[in-house]
Amino acid sequence: MPQSIPSYSGIPMPSLRRLPGYHHFLKQLTELKEEYVSATTIAQELKLIPIQVRKDLAYTGIIGKPKVGYPVKELIIAIEEFLDWNNTKKAFLVGVGDLGRAIIKYQGFHKLGVEIIAAFDSSPEIIGSTIGGIKILHVDKLTTLAKRINVKIGIITVPEDAAQSIADKMIVGGIKGLWNFAPVKLKIPRDIVVQSVNLAASLSVLCKQLSDVIKK
Amino acid sequence: MPQSIPSYSGIPMPSLRRLPGYHHFLKQLTELKEEYVSATTIAQELKLIPIQVRKDLAYTGIIGKPKVGYPVKELIIAIEEFLDWNNTKKAFLVGVGDLGRAIIKYQGFHKLGVEIIAAFDSSPEIIGSTIGGIKILHVDKLTTLAKRINVKIGIITVPEDAAQSIADKMIVGGIKGLWNFAPVKLKIPRDIVVQSVNLAASLSVLCKQLSDVIKK
Repeated sequence: MPQSIPSYSGIPMPSLRRLPGYHHFLKQLTELKEEYVSATTIAQELKLIPIQVRKDLAYTGIIGKPKVGYPVKELIIAIEEFLDWNNTKKAFLVGVGDLGRAIIKYQGFHKLGVEIIAAFDSSPEIIGSTIGGIKILHVDKLTTLAKRINVKIGIITVPEDAAQSIADKMIVGGIKGLWNFAPVKLKIPRDIVVQSVNLAASLSVLCKQLSDVIKK
Repeated sequence: MPQSIPSYSGIPMPSLRRLPGYHHFLKQLTELKEEYVSATTIAQELKLIPIQVRKDLAYTGIIGKPKVGYPVKELIIAIEEFLDWNNTKKAFLVGVGDLGRAIIKYQGFHKLGVEIIAAFDSSPEIIGSTIGGIKILHVDKLTTLAKRINVKIGIITVPEDAAQSIADKMIVGGIKGLWNFAPVKLKIPRDIVVQSVNLAASLSVLCKQLSDVIKK
């Protein structure tokens, strides 16, 4: 049975996932004062094929000029607009273990337009403390605060047996997008979007590939 | 241009990524003393379609019996063998920041047959200390130790500008599988396998989906 590639706004998921990589490379070019770049150069640098690069970038509305390429600055802005990076979205994180702390402290999400404004846990020892400038609150306050502050993104870094109940609380609080690190398939209504980062699945794929490589 | 789905050992990547999820659900069933389970039940629980479940599980060599389903325990063992979980693989982690610490402390990788036996950093303040029972060593020792101890997996949690040089050191040390958390495309020889966890790409997809949902 052929598998269809899921798409959003008409852009296939793999193309969408590649856009931050293009953006990162283009930013490096601006530091080198490069004004134009060809699809071939981008493809070489990112180990893609030029036709794929052209197709991906066309979704942003920018078309490269023959023999000149893409205007770097214009393309950067188009990607940022397409990915909605300039429109800062408030996020709550629930589960302040090691992974939760790592995500709170990670500086890279701000440029993607996501700002973690509070974190929640149920452990009395850490409630009231501050990590990376972010206050840790009791998880009982999650739903009320999400509604009041109009938070749209919920980051789930709790153990797997707590993930569904936290997702439910977030959804009741009006949160529409879940970024889930717990290795569970969340049951969610149709108007909620979820992206899962499944570290166990990723590591399993690596181990399987590795066993194939070593056998050869 | 149609995109082909990458596969290993004849199993498509999406099927491979789903196997740990099946395993997790099957383990829950053994706790409930269930001896058999149908593809339909698995599909319902994991929000898949039965034909997909049957196809995925067939790669492990276990075929369900009509009207009875799959033997739970047998299927668990078959998945573990297929994913090579019983064969413990030694891993080194490089980059002991927040993300590195989270991964060192995470208990879940051991059951996937991956054991982090040492971590490396270049920061004098933490070299010689111990995190989650794992000793932090100077990154200069990485290559020699990887060779001596026959380490096969390298986990890269350094900032992006250091990732390629760390990958190179790992490869010289005989490491064959890289688990890369730095948002860069690593340049690697053909006999090396890499799995990347790109948190920025995942969050970008979520934000794009979210902006579509909110617009509706």
